[in-house]
Amino acid sequence: MNISMIVLILGWVIMLEGAFMALPVVTGLLYGETGHAVVYLLTGAVSALTGFLMKYRKPTNRTFYAREGFAAVALSWLLMSLIGALPLRITGDIPYYPDALFEVISGFTTTGSSILRDVEALSHANLIWRSFTHWIGGMGVLVFVLAVLPMSGGSTMNLMKAESPGPTVGKLVPKVQRTASILYLIYFVMTVVMIGILLLGHMPLFDAVCTAFGTAGTGGFGVRGDSIAGYSTFLQNVITVFMLLFGVNFTFYYLLLQKKWKDALKMEEVRVYLAIYVLAVAAITLNLVFSKGPGFSTSLQQAAFQVSSIMTTTGFATADFDIWPSFAKTILVGIMFIGACAGSTGGGIKVSRLLLYLRQMKRGLRQQIHPRTVKVIKMEGKGVELNTIRMANVFLISYLLIFAFSVLFVSLDGFSFTTNFTAVAATINNIGPGLEQVGPTANFADFGLFSKIVLMFDMLAGRLEILPMVLLFHPTTWKR
Amino acid sequence: MNISMIVLILGWVIMLEGAFMALPVVTGLLYGETGHAVVYLLTGAVSALTGFLMKYRKPTNRTFYAREGFAAVALSWLLMSLIGALPLRITGDIPYYPDALFEVISGFTTTGSSILRDVEALSHANLIWRSFTHWIGGMGVLVFVLAVLPMSGGSTMNLMKAESPGPTVGKLVPKVQRTASILYLIYFVMTVVMIGILLLGHMPLFDAVCTAFGTAGTGGFGVRGDSIAGYSTFLQNVITVFMLLFGVNFTFYYLLLQKKWKDALKMEEVRVYLAIYVLAVAAITLNLVFSKGPGFSTSLQQAAFQVSSIMTTTGFATADFDIWPSFAKTILVGIMFIGACAGSTGGGIKVSRLLLYLRQMKRGLRQQIHPRTVKVIKMEGKGVELNTIRMANVFLISYLLIFAFSVLFVSLDGFSFTTNFTAVAATINNIGPGLEQVGPTANFADFGLFSKIVLMFDMLAGRLEILPMVLLFHPTTWKR
Repeated sequence: MNISMIVLILGWVIMLEGAFMALPVVTGLLYGETGHAVVYLLTGAVSALTGFLMKYRKPTNRTFYAREGFAAVALSWLLMSLIGALPLRITGDIPYYPDALFEVISGFTTTGSSILRDVEALSHANLIWRSFTHWIGGMGVLVFVLAVLPMSGGSTMNLMKAESPGPTVGKLVPKVQRTASILYLIYFVMTVVMIGILLLGHMPLFDAVCTAFGTAGTGGFGVRGDSIAGYSTFLQNVITVFMLLFGVNFTFYYLLLQKKWKDALKMEEVRVYLAIYVLAVAAITLNLVFSKGPGFSTSLQQAAFQVSSIMTTTGFATADFDIWPSFAKTILVGIMFIGACAGSTGGGIKVSRLLLYLRQMKRGLRQQIHPRTVKVIKMEGKGVELNTIRMANVFLISYLLIFAFSVLFVSLDGFSFTTNFTAVAATINNIGPGLEQVGPTANFADFGLFSKIVLMFDMLAGRLEILPMVLLFHPTTWKR
Repeated sequence: MNISMIVLILGWVIMLEGAFMALPVVTGLLYGETGHAVVYLLTGAVSALTGFLMKYRKPTNRTFYAREGFAAVALSWLLMSLIGALPLRITGDIPYYPDALFEVISGFTTTGSSILRDVEALSHANLIWRSFTHWIGGMGVLVFVLAVLPMSGGSTMNLMKAESPGPTVGKLVPKVQRTASILYLIYFVMTVVMIGILLLGHMPLFDAVCTAFGTAGTGGFGVRGDSIAGYSTFLQNVITVFMLLFGVNFTFYYLLLQKKWKDALKMEEVRVYLAIYVLAVAAITLNLVFSKGPGFSTSLQQAAFQVSSIMTTTGFATADFDIWPSFAKTILVGIMFIGACAGSTGGGIKVSRLLLYLRQMKRGLRQQIHPRTVKVIKMEGKGVELNTIRMANVFLISYLLIFAFSVLFVSLDGFSFTTNFTAVAATINNIGPGLEQVGPTANFADFGLFSKIVLMFDMLAGRLEILPMVLLFHPTTWKR
């Protein structure tokens, strides 16, 4: 284990985090929240300085294997969460540190589950930091590090592999650093465009920036007590579309930029993603209309918004879907698990992994009947490596185990099975709200400390796709 | 597809089913239910005669591949359920045929979910038939056919593979027919011993026979409205032990019979099965005691019974566990999925498959850190074939898919998420009761016809371990 390389990376991460705190500092000053601005200034300065010192001593040995990648990613996310929670605690807006940590982990992992009973009581500095964590966590902080810093050699791919979602991590271009820059550029431009359109729809600037951060990272923190329900239908529809866009595999946009229209439109994952979206919206709309809900157009609009929000694992709400009919709720729970595309900012199991499972199943069934046929599983027109399939299966098994034990541990608090099940589903899939006591009009405040720790672990495990978090506790990672 | 061989097997199956109806005929006569006895006599005679005619024409081509095995098993189970439901309908005790079919499928698949609001209203003939279906389905009707009939060649193994539970089907002895006979002999003797002990505990003969059928098949149909709660503590404890015994891999008993004590005690699956049992009982007992439930000894006794009942997928109840604390209920839901040992009469995912998943996960994690290590997965000291692992994964994927769609379809009836989730869990794992509207004091009567069909499919898919039911609808099974 190359400890000094890990220290170097951790240094970069918290130095950057310190720099990112400039945004809440400026916001605090603009809104006359001088005290809060100072808190962010000091926390940011200490964080940046510590980071600078940590990365000061250059490691002599720069070898960097998979296990260093996993460890660096898991520790980076833990460390930046521990630091990011400080200002929320110090300003007193979230007086209990574990709650502040829960909120910030929920932010960085783009979950959007909140322990706040009243969002609007927060200062502007805290609100924008909270939303900004979504934006930072969405594309990944280590991907950002890769984009801005001159790191040595090809082994940096291990960092990106460990942080990026999806069963396979495609480099857009041969160089990792350039891939990371392109991804962040697309991400940045799309965020700016979204802010512009929200402003055109007369959303206040502050709300527009925070909402765009929450949408781009598919996070889901809002700045209002009623999430998105209070905004105009136009704004809700804009958010519907952008959530869906940020759930698309970013390779799609890269292909568009390269004017490879055909290749982009042929992407299997994007097609299946959209097909599931359309089917789910249609089914929920019909269910709402036939169960004497609102009229057709309102039902369609609400279904389109909510499916987009849940499937991309954003978690914004315009309606209290906890009171929707059973069928509609079950669809929402189902798409919680599917999630968005790999290579997007969304969470969940991912559409491409789902495809991989379905194809494995198809091949297995065929093999039972014709035992001698040898079939290669294909994705996006290419044969899938054996290791990719294996790791997708290991992902599924670990995911189910963590899921089962989390529901069990959380049940110690005595809430209903539906609450516990959807609380875990909403956190491990990085969505935000669940049903019943953690429904869209409720929050996670009532869980005990132990349950909150379990759910924090689930959020991190979900965002980092299980492996880094599991390997962090695996003895072989730390051997020798 | 060798249709004539399948017709031959179906003929054997329904001929035997007709013969099995002698038991309710005799019972009906003994209890003065002449009308019901006549119904069973006629149905049995027609069934046996039809079967005899179907198997009369010997097929010229006796080749029998895997797909014939799957198709024969799936169709046998469907056909014998369709016939087995007739007397319940004709006698008028279950006036709606789909309900009678649900009840009989629940019987043959050893599920024990019931649509009856009042069990005690049934005639003795119907009650004993209902419980007898558990006993027939527990070890498998085709295994019985294999045991009694002189079938040609080694290809009959495909039948046993398709009907027997577990990722690998071990032949106890080289000959399939002898393996089947030994299994049925152990099964028969254990059932008789259990009846004897129940009689010693002063249970009435009729109750003892039905209860032993329900226990041996790990089915769960009782003959009283309060399931097992009304019997003495001694009887309850006897049932606790026998449920647990019937959930053990029968290879264990075969090894004992051969006096290979060491080999028997070394069986990994049996050890893990018992370890999970002890852990679950301990956790639930503590949870009940600390949540101001009954005292320690009552809590222990109830926990021991209920965990045995759910883990072996029997489904008897001595307490209304729907009102137990959340943690205890979650443990019960968890062990619903684990289920009993492979090669037992129990359902669920099976302990050995769970072990296979855990070992795959362990290997996968290790491989991420040391990519060049090659490790073979071992079970019971032997390397596991690649195909076994693959099919275990295909099983998991199919299982999860069927599970998800079933919950979705059933939710159309508008019940709570917990009801729908546990109704599917209780049927696909062949347990019986779930929580809330399908809890131990409730029943499945209120579901609509569509939901009942879905749940019937789940029971069959669960008992036959998914593949035969899925392949029945797969076009390649029927090609050429």
